[in-house]
Amino acid sequence: MIIVYSPDHALQEGRSELHDGKIVPCFESPRRAALVLAGIEAAGLGPVEAPQRFGLDPVRRVHAADYVAFLETAWGAWVAEHGDHDALPFTWLAPDMRRVLPDHIDGKLGYYAFDAGTPITAGTFRAAGVAADVALTGAHRLADGAPCAFALGRPPGHHAGRAHYGGYCFFNNAAIAAQALRDRGAARVAVLDVDYHHGNGTQEIFYDRGDVLFVSLHADPKQEYPYFLGFADETGSGAGEGATANYPLPFGTGWDTYAEALDHALGRIAAFGAEAVVVSLGVDAYKGDPISRFRLDTPDFAALGRRLAGLRRPTLLVMEGGYAVEAIGLNVVAVLRGFLDAA
Amino acid sequence: MIIVYSPDHALQEGRSELHDGKIVPCFESPRRAALVLAGIEAAGLGPVEAPQRFGLDPVRRVHAADYVAFLETAWGAWVAEHGDHDALPFTWLAPDMRRVLPDHIDGKLGYYAFDAGTPITAGTFRAAGVAADVALTGAHRLADGAPCAFALGRPPGHHAGRAHYGGYCFFNNAAIAAQALRDRGAARVAVLDVDYHHGNGTQEIFYDRGDVLFVSLHADPKQEYPYFLGFADETGSGAGEGATANYPLPFGTGWDTYAEALDHALGRIAAFGAEAVVVSLGVDAYKGDPISRFRLDTPDFAALGRRLAGLRRPTLLVMEGGYAVEAIGLNVVAVLRGFLDAA
Repeated sequence: MIIVYSPDHALQEGRSELHDGKIVPCFESPRRAALVLAGIEAAGLGPVEAPQRFGLDPVRRVHAADYVAFLETAWGAWVAEHGDHDALPFTWLAPDMRRVLPDHIDGKLGYYAFDAGTPITAGTFRAAGVAADVALTGAHRLADGAPCAFALGRPPGHHAGRAHYGGYCFFNNAAIAAQALRDRGAARVAVLDVDYHHGNGTQEIFYDRGDVLFVSLHADPKQEYPYFLGFADETGSGAGEGATANYPLPFGTGWDTYAEALDHALGRIAAFGAEAVVVSLGVDAYKGDPISRFRLDTPDFAALGRRLAGLRRPTLLVMEGGYAVEAIGLNVVAVLRGFLDAA
Repeated sequence: MIIVYSPDHALQEGRSELHDGKIVPCFESPRRAALVLAGIEAAGLGPVEAPQRFGLDPVRRVHAADYVAFLETAWGAWVAEHGDHDALPFTWLAPDMRRVLPDHIDGKLGYYAFDAGTPITAGTFRAAGVAADVALTGAHRLADGAPCAFALGRPPGHHAGRAHYGGYCFFNNAAIAAQALRDRGAARVAVLDVDYHHGNGTQEIFYDRGDVLFVSLHADPKQEYPYFLGFADETGSGAGEGATANYPLPFGTGWDTYAEALDHALGRIAAFGAEAVVVSLGVDAYKGDPISRFRLDTPDFAALGRRLAGLRRPTLLVMEGGYAVEAIGLNVVAVLRGFLDAA
C-alpha cells in the first residue's frame, strides 16, 4: 500500500493545550506520526513516498479564502502582541453576539477557533499545508489508478470546517482529498469517519452537497467533544439531504456494538454508489486512549481494515486522531494489514 | 452616600484565567473590593450597610432559569469529573454548530460561557448571589427615596447575558437592579456603562425593550474584548429600537475625548426621561490599568462623578471592572466624592 509521508509534520509541535482547566502539553504530538511510520516500516508495508506540492488552490476548494489568509498571518500577529509562545484563543462569540471579524489577534483567534486546545505555532501553517499535500498526493494516486493509499500526515483535519479550526485540526485533509477526487472525475465520493470524535468539519463542508456522502461513527456528542454537532438527526440539507449519516455511540462502546454500526455505515456507502472512499482514520476508539472512552482493541482495528476493504472501492485512508502513542503504530498497522489481507 | 457591601464577595476567588495563551491568577480578585472598601472608609464615606437577601426570583427576572440552575450545579459536576480546581471551558460552539445543551460538564461550560477567563469555583454561585443582593439592596434604597447608593459587590456583572457568562461576570447585577427599579415603579430606567469594556450582557438583556435605555462608553470592539458586540450601529430592536447607544472609543482615549462622548451619552439619558439611573461603574479606563488601554487619571474620575450627579436623578452606582488594584480605591472614591460634591 502506498504510504504518503513527510517529516515536515513535525513543524506543528504545540506545547500548550487547555485541558481540564489546566495548560498541558498537547496530546497531538509529532511522536504520533513518527511512531506510526516506525510501525509501518517494521511491518514491511509501503512504499513510503514523499508528497507532491499542490499549493493552496485545492485547500481553498473547501476552505474560505479569508480563513486561509488568517492561518497564514496569525502567528506573526500573535508574536507581535504576546511573544513567541503558543497562540490560544481566550474568548469567542456567545450565540447572541455578532459574527464580525475583529482587528485584534485575540479577537481573530476567537472568531475562527472553537476550542482552546489547538495552538497555532510558528510552524502551524506550513505543517497544515504539508498535511494537505500528503492527503492530496494520496487522492491523486487513487485517481491515477491505485486501489488504496494511506496519507500519514498531521496535524489532523476532520474537525476543521470551511472557516474554523479546533480539535488539533486546521486544514481538513480528508475533505480536501475528497474534493480532489471529485475534481479528478469521481462522480460520487464517500467520506467514512471512524475517528472517536465526530468529524464536524467534514460534515459542515459537505452538508448541502449530494455528491459527497459523509458517514461518521463517534462518541455521542451529548457526552463528548465536539458536543455541538454529530447527532443522528443531522442528515444533510438541500441537495445534500440524505448524504450525511451519523452514528453516535455511547461511552464504553466495544467492537460488537461498533461493528454493527460500521456495517450499517458501509451499507450506506455501497448504496450511495461511491466511486472512491476517503476514510478519516482515527484510532482513538482504542481502549487505552487517554482522552477517549471506547473499548476497541488492536485486533478490532484489523477487523475494521478488513471490512473497509470489503467495500471494493478505491480507498484513501487519512490519518486523524489517536493519542495512546505507545499503541498508535500497532493500531494503524492493524487497520492497514487487515485492509490488505482482505483486498 | 449609602454603600452596600458584604465580605462574602470573597467567596469568589478564581485562581485560573486563560490570558495571552497562559494560565495566570485572576485579575478579578477579592483584593479589589477590599481596597475599594478601605478607600471608602479612609475617605469617611458611608454609611456602609450589609445587603438584604432577595433570593433568586429577581435574578430570574433577567436570567434564564436553565442558566441559573446550571450555575448552581456546575461546580459539583466539574469536581466529580475533574477535581476541585477552577472550572474553565475549553471548547464552544462554532457558528455553524447546534445550540443543544450537552450532558457533560465540559460541554455545558462551553454552551454557557464565552471565554476561558472566568473560572467557576466552589464559591462562585454564592458570591454571585450576594453580588446580586448588594445591587438589589441599593436599588430598593433608591426606590425608597435615597438619592444615590453605591453597590460595592463582586463578581462584576455587565458581561453576563440572559444565559451566558464571561468577563468575570455571572449574574448581571446592574441589569438585575435596573429591573428591580422598574418593578418598584420607575417607568423608565437608564443604564450607563462606563466600564472600559462593552457591557454586552446588559445590552443583550434589554436590547428589545423600550423601558430600559442602555448607553455604553467603551474600547472599540474591533480592537478589544468582548470583540463581538458594542458597535455604534447597535441601536436596539423592536420596542427597544433607539434604546441602545454605544460609544466605541479608540485605544489611548484620554479625558477630553471621553468627556465629549460622556456628555453626549448623558444627553441621551436626560432626553429619555429616565426616572432612575444605574451606572455600571468600572474604573478600568484608568491609565494604569494592566489590561486596558485608555488614559483617564484619578482627577478625571472625580469629573466623571460630577457629571453623573448633573443628571439630577436617583442614581445607583454598581461596581464593575478595574484591575489596577493599587489605585482602584482612589479612583472609585474619586467618582463618589465627585458625585457628592456636585449633588
